[in-house]
Amino acid sequence: MLVGGMGEEALLRKLRGLFAAAGPGVPVGIGDDAAVLDCPEGRQAVWSTDLMLEGVHFLKQWQTPRQLGRKCLAVNLSDIAAMGATPNFALLSIACTPETEIEYVLEIARGFSGLATEEGVAVVGGDTTASTGALTVSVSVGGFVEEGEALLRSGATVGDSILVTGDLGSAAAGLRLVREGESGAYPDLTSAFLEPQPRIRASLAAVQVGATSMTDISDGLASDLRHICEESGVGAMVEPASLPSSPQMDEAVVRFGWDRESIMLSGGEDYELLFTLPGGIAEQAKEVIAHAAGQQVTIIGEIMPREYGVRLVGRDGSGRDMPPHGYEHFISRD
Amino acid sequence: MLVGGMGEEALLRKLRGLFAAAGPGVPVGIGDDAAVLDCPEGRQAVWSTDLMLEGVHFLKQWQTPRQLGRKCLAVNLSDIAAMGATPNFALLSIACTPETEIEYVLEIARGFSGLATEEGVAVVGGDTTASTGALTVSVSVGGFVEEGEALLRSGATVGDSILVTGDLGSAAAGLRLVREGESGAYPDLTSAFLEPQPRIRASLAAVQVGATSMTDISDGLASDLRHICEESGVGAMVEPASLPSSPQMDEAVVRFGWDRESIMLSGGEDYELLFTLPGGIAEQAKEVIAHAAGQQVTIIGEIMPREYGVRLVGRDGSGRDMPPHGYEHFISRD
Repeated sequence: MLVGGMGEEALLRKLRGLFAAAGPGVPVGIGDDAAVLDCPEGRQAVWSTDLMLEGVHFLKQWQTPRQLGRKCLAVNLSDIAAMGATPNFALLSIACTPETEIEYVLEIARGFSGLATEEGVAVVGGDTTASTGALTVSVSVGGFVEEGEALLRSGATVGDSILVTGDLGSAAAGLRLVREGESGAYPDLTSAFLEPQPRIRASLAAVQVGATSMTDISDGLASDLRHICEESGVGAMVEPASLPSSPQMDEAVVRFGWDRESIMLSGGEDYELLFTLPGGIAEQAKEVIAHAAGQQVTIIGEIMPREYGVRLVGRDGSGRDMPPHGYEHFISRD
Repeated sequence: MLVGGMGEEALLRKLRGLFAAAGPGVPVGIGDDAAVLDCPEGRQAVWSTDLMLEGVHFLKQWQTPRQLGRKCLAVNLSDIAAMGATPNFALLSIACTPETEIEYVLEIARGFSGLATEEGVAVVGGDTTASTGALTVSVSVGGFVEEGEALLRSGATVGDSILVTGDLGSAAAGLRLVREGESGAYPDLTSAFLEPQPRIRASLAAVQVGATSMTDISDGLASDLRHICEESGVGAMVEPASLPSSPQMDEAVVRFGWDRESIMLSGGEDYELLFTLPGGIAEQAKEVIAHAAGQQVTIIGEIMPREYGVRLVGRDGSGRDMPPHGYEHFISRD
């Protein structure tokens, strides 16, 4: 059955059935003019949003609608994790043409709901509307953080170590594989792109061990590290050989003749965490976070004075500027 | 200059300049992975979102981009007002083609920012991205309400009076005028459609005098009253002759031969408040709200037992069922 044959209210009722109604912390969930949420004492709210469009952020043939719904929530949860906060609530809005299959919309909602349940996030509202063309998904997420404990981009100081969770470039490599119809060849890479996992446990562990700044790698390391440097008024030295990549990525780079460094520095959508810690505790803290998150954590460089710039420096001491660009939506690129 | 010639980061910087940075209640505003917001003690958060697309909710030629930006915030603030809450924060996301003029996007943001400033709402984040076609605006708003004081759709009881702020049908009449190129003929009607005013003061006054349920009239009175009746498990009797309309609407109805009742009952986008109050205090409460809000308030009917249904009953006692539909996005209609 098509969305256009059902009407908005009937679709809304079906969607509501996929999400929990009111519950702990949510006195009023989906179904009124707005949701009502309890604010725990001594905590601040953290709030973010993303707008994702067919033809810009995804193509329908790239993934199942369930994977799409899951990813739309994951990239938003990643923003909350990047603040050192716990995500608690989400709003999901979908615009699709009247010719869209109802089941397709419900599968998006099921994927969204699946990850929400795994992460203890309540879906408390949203919007559905017609689209004249592109399938459009808008997501807002909210959460809480202990008062004054949010991890900003502006907290890095000279001498801090720079760390990342997981591997770099896997999602960008996965995108290339999906585009070229090679989805099955390297499943770790395609799944890094199609089913990114928000690093919520790693984020909370990083807060606990004393991280000084944090962001998530959504635009590529080069761009996101520059954000931290600009907001903190510092420079950075990154050692290229230390950048972590998955074995499948190393294989794929050779097989397809890709520029490994460019993928790792400028490939978007990794949704790993990039953060800084005082240099003296970095080695030990790294192990604590890795253990808590069940995930590899790597020291990739050091925060330098602002005048230093943002540079890649090899073990032999040879240096050069970090390439300027990460992913830009408005400028067409390969 | 076009959006495509500028790049996302440069556009973001320009947009940020239009909105306040961190301030009272907003420890971290635009510019990090997420905003950080203070939660006042003893209050609950109220949270809502809307997705608005060119070709579905608006056409570019209908209004200036400044009016568009203002309206995109207004309809969201109306949802918060409909909960009896005060709006405090907003997120603004815009997707446009690379061929969009930068100035057009900035004007949308200025309109949004203008109303935000008037209503004491901080714009704390959002998203910009490319669109392959339709201009798309997604807005989320948040606010606070005294614990347990949110006005739900489910609070109406038999014997309550039913009230509305302002006039009904003006926005729907305005839409017809704008579509037919008659924008200048009845300025009150076009402005009701292009520049709706969220009824925040009326909402707070209604809370104070003891309103029992509330929603905003976004889909038309017939549809929105049915929402209250369904959620409250009650019926309703509405007296057609009591429905308030503006003098310009009465003129336009005659001039263009429109069906007055259909416009008033099923015309969407009024963004007036529809609420209930114990019958015994309705007359007095109506005056208090009207005075506080500087706006007319009208008693249009009474809450009845569920079995009664939702009916229109004339002064002569003749009754019939309320027409079933308000505005539906997915079903194409005139």
